Amino acid sequence: MSEKPLILVTNDDGITAPGLRYLIGIMNQIGEVVVVAPEGPQSGMGHAITIHSTLHCDPIRIDDGPQQEYSCSGTPVDCVKLAVNVILDRKPDLIVSGINHGSNSSINVIYSGTMSAAVEGALEGIPSVGFSLLNYSWEADFSHTGKYIEGISRKLLAEGLKEGVCLNVNIPDSSNGEIQGVKVCRQADANWVEEFDKRIDPRGRNYYWLTGKFVVFDKGTDTDEWALENGYISLVPVETDFTAHHKIGDINKWTFEF
Amino acid sequence: MSEKPLILVTNDDGITAPGLRYLIGIMNQIGEVVVVAPEGPQSGMGHAITIHSTLHCDPIRIDDGPQQEYSCSGTPVDCVKLAVNVILDRKPDLIVSGINHGSNSSINVIYSGTMSAAVEGALEGIPSVGFSLLNYSWEADFSHTGKYIEGISRKLLAEGLKEGVCLNVNIPDSSNGEIQGVKVCRQADANWVEEFDKRIDPRGRNYYWLTGKFVVFDKGTDTDEWALENGYISLVPVETDFTAHHKIGDINKWTFEF
Repeated sequence: MSEKPLILVTNDDGITAPGLRYLIGIMNQIGEVVVVAPEGPQSGMGHAITIHSTLHCDPIRIDDGPQQEYSCSGTPVDCVKLAVNVILDRKPDLIVSGINHGSNSSINVIYSGTMSAAVEGALEGIPSVGFSLLNYSWEADFSHTGKYIEGISRKLLAEGLKEGVCLNVNIPDSSNGEIQGVKVCRQADANWVEEFDKRIDPRGRNYYWLTGKFVVFDKGTDTDEWALENGYISLVPVETDFTAHHKIGDINKWTFEF
Repeated sequence: MSEKPLILVTNDDGITAPGLRYLIGIMNQIGEVVVVAPEGPQSGMGHAITIHSTLHCDPIRIDDGPQQEYSCSGTPVDCVKLAVNVILDRKPDLIVSGINHGSNSSINVIYSGTMSAAVEGALEGIPSVGFSLLNYSWEADFSHTGKYIEGISRKLLAEGLKEGVCLNVNIPDSSNGEIQGVKVCRQADANWVEEFDKRIDPRGRNYYWLTGKFVVFDKGTDTDEWALENGYISLVPVETDFTAHHKIGDINKWTFEF
């Protein structure tokens, strides 16, 4: 009898988030599930790690099910590091992160705690994927995502992925009609145009809220933004070698004056 | 008479860090300097942004010099976003981040607030560079780095860089002897092997400190780790398109069962 695959589940919206609870339900069908997730919201934390303060990570029970769960005071990347090095008694076969409440397409991969957990998994040599739904609401409907998440996760378990690459999967909202399928894409060229909301506190001091508008510059039909716009699930393989290899030749021609 | 270039200076060690103060001195020789830096240490914050709380960013005077300075309650990426969108009256010609107290070579680029500030600059289409010294001490000697930092910064100003690419520059410690020159490199394949230090607090609850050992797997002589090991300054062009383009073909062959 073969051992069930060990699946680590995490996210950045926190351990009580409906997207995580739904993801746990899917993963319980596939393997033995251990959840190590942040105790509260960690959106926008990117690849942050906790080095200037202490970390807590304690067993917790949120709802019924066979999964073991741990609530962690740190970031999503802390959760993966703690799980792999402290909590789990063997290397997980798969790391799934999400389901994020909101898109992590395009450049959002860099700000996303959900995706950073998957990237950290890739650095540890573990097949890893982040799932995100294009709906920011806490009450978002995840019911149409299950079969796709299960299919992609089973395939990733079967195929594996070379160290240093993970998957960024974004799923259209249910209000957008039938899912057209899965497209393997590149990250679209897009960016946030920030709009800081400047306010004055009751003591007369200025403060700011970061807000912004997401702008897609890319006209390509091979991008995640195109796929999502056209009703497909986007699947982008994400690299952890950040070298701009194509620029090395150019910069090698620079002559410095020291 | 041509306008002096506008240079934004930031870091992740905080606005009073000696590495930042030294960098400001160099940049004052090159252009008009505005400093927007975190009020306290933000090491390990990666590309985190502040979306769940408010931001402060107030003028401050730390020492003499022509530079204008602002102290910001947020992360290094928040500093760049605030500077570009709120503080500065025109787009900066250059963003310099650092000088970091400690290496940001290889995979450290992903955890580094210093480098994330440069990456954010690249996303904004501004020539950007992060400088780091291979010495973690607050009392590190920066005096041998000045002429190299000035030379690299002037060259970057002159050449520019296409949107989405920035430079990660690491400099050997002065104790390592004469600098051999600058090598344009790729990011070495290396990673942290974590060792969590588990302790028990006075109330009997477990807590953890994240520690670890940096391990270089890469044997290449074209990497930043090789360059630094051999007395060179390493210069890695860093990409903001994280797509693993070489994997798209492979994954396109996967057949999913939904």
